[in-house]
Amino acid sequence: MKAVGFKTSLPISEPESFIEVETEKPTPSGHELLVKVKAISVNPVDYKIRQNSAKNTVLAQPKIIGWDAVGTVEAVGEAVTLFNKGDEVYYAGDITKQGSNAAYQVIDERIVGKKPVSLTIEEAAAIPLTALTAWEIFFDRMRLSAERDQNKTLLIIGGAGGVGSIAIQLAKKLLGMKVIATASRSETIEWCKKMGADVVVNHRNLIEEVRKAGYQQVDYIVDFVDTNLYWDAMAELIKPQGHIASITGSPTPVLLNKLKSKSVSFSWELMFTRSTFQTEDMIEQHIILNRVADLLDQGVLQPTLTQTLEGLTADNFKQAHKQLESGSTIGKLVIRF
Amino acid sequence: MKAVGFKTSLPISEPESFIEVETEKPTPSGHELLVKVKAISVNPVDYKIRQNSAKNTVLAQPKIIGWDAVGTVEAVGEAVTLFNKGDEVYYAGDITKQGSNAAYQVIDERIVGKKPVSLTIEEAAAIPLTALTAWEIFFDRMRLSAERDQNKTLLIIGGAGGVGSIAIQLAKKLLGMKVIATASRSETIEWCKKMGADVVVNHRNLIEEVRKAGYQQVDYIVDFVDTNLYWDAMAELIKPQGHIASITGSPTPVLLNKLKSKSVSFSWELMFTRSTFQTEDMIEQHIILNRVADLLDQGVLQPTLTQTLEGLTADNFKQAHKQLESGSTIGKLVIRF
Repeated sequence: MKAVGFKTSLPISEPESFIEVETEKPTPSGHELLVKVKAISVNPVDYKIRQNSAKNTVLAQPKIIGWDAVGTVEAVGEAVTLFNKGDEVYYAGDITKQGSNAAYQVIDERIVGKKPVSLTIEEAAAIPLTALTAWEIFFDRMRLSAERDQNKTLLIIGGAGGVGSIAIQLAKKLLGMKVIATASRSETIEWCKKMGADVVVNHRNLIEEVRKAGYQQVDYIVDFVDTNLYWDAMAELIKPQGHIASITGSPTPVLLNKLKSKSVSFSWELMFTRSTFQTEDMIEQHIILNRVADLLDQGVLQPTLTQTLEGLTADNFKQAHKQLESGSTIGKLVIRF
Repeated sequence: MKAVGFKTSLPISEPESFIEVETEKPTPSGHELLVKVKAISVNPVDYKIRQNSAKNTVLAQPKIIGWDAVGTVEAVGEAVTLFNKGDEVYYAGDITKQGSNAAYQVIDERIVGKKPVSLTIEEAAAIPLTALTAWEIFFDRMRLSAERDQNKTLLIIGGAGGVGSIAIQLAKKLLGMKVIATASRSETIEWCKKMGADVVVNHRNLIEEVRKAGYQQVDYIVDFVDTNLYWDAMAELIKPQGHIASITGSPTPVLLNKLKSKSVSFSWELMFTRSTFQTEDMIEQHIILNRVADLLDQGVLQPTLTQTLEGLTADNFKQAHKQLESGSTIGKLVIRF
């Protein structure tokens, strides 16, 4: 089968940064589905893995990445109970396994949902990784609920990106929170408002900007940009008893004590935790994706797709990664095969 | 009125480390109660404040500390609605105000509860600060519930101290969790079991000890000893999607990233946050103290008192602080006036 991958970590401008390859079509076993992939979406994790996973080495077999896909179930493993051949599905996947940038992929049914029927293939491909991430932050990490958290204030650092776009919607539509999102260009400000943000502020001079908008402190903060960079500002802006969550990582140590006098909590969210550790509740991702599909079909949530490329080609992946690396992507970019 | 305080931070062996003083009896206003104090308990926060709040200086007025008391309401401010003159009350107090080591104290009614009727004065004095701390950790910071967390595993680092003693009970009796507590001496091991711990392990070589007891990883960890010292062990022992909480502070920066791949959360708990910041939900401490009083009266929770000294004297406070500074105190120490 055809796939797009790489054998060594190279700058995206290099001809071999992505290569087209022929690999063996996989066979599903156990809880696995064999999916014929129709579209994938690209996330920041993709270029981080491409840049770092084969540094100063040349892999014997090409590495196939990509963690967001829509497709049709072509065959099922012997333990599969949730899906049948022919089902249209969407999923983010498992970072310890081969990715979705290929004509076919095997995937554990417990992390797969039914494709939202009212969305196009490419609209659906834009959803899984970002929706799972935002959902897990609010409901599994922070344990928020509409009952307790309606009208609370939430600051989203990085509102216009993929996760930001769906996080704004979940916070507004499911939790009824007041959402302050950061964005700095007229297009990204517009996009955050379209997603439902009540207020949009510039991420530069974050403390002053949030206060100028009328918020001395906020109940919750989610960071989709840089934990270390915003640590002090988050510690200052969070209310007593507040909760901060982040997906970005923190390469240098932080002064956790800055959160102590206010009894503040901090959560990491990594969408790959459940599949990597094969947690007992791994099937939650199946449940979340189905609930998100229903919310999209009911029109409660809206698609976040902004751009589609056509074709499973190395050139398309180079273009997609180049754009994501620039950090200026609004919403989601999809490649349809 | 008589009080015991200090004018300068001195080692507890010094004669002037505590002094007996006469100060003006305070007058309640607004939401304040005037309480005739009958007994107080001593907590580690007391000696930390004594050691650090008047370093290399001599205060003009003696500093009165102490944050745990039982007494009788003698007068009420004009806005008081929760209590009447003559009520028996217990409370931990507000670190920004004068403490309880005095014949009388004024205290905001919203952080005061009714004294458990079935407990002696000294048993009741041992409860407030530790019960508020443990309750806020489990229900307000970690947002645990019996429904979701029954049979989950909890590691308590420092099981035999004041907060540990009540935390073990809340975790067992209210949440139905499996509790692994740390203790190293035969008396402290016995005490942890009496409080309800399922398993007691030595805090030295913590990872090996917990695993030897049959637990590869645990769902939750609460640290009552030293966040920096146990950071790496906690990061290793916590399950994917787990939650760690601490009350101890962390003077040096930590590698927060150690918790990232497992999507782990971390919470600080400081019992003084609500009163210091006068949060909108400050009255929660009134509600918690009343619920804890009911649970004590129903026999669901048991007293944690182990030692009582008699008399509002400087000598008693010297003896109490000396003992708490040794780090070997089991349960709670009370001074009855």
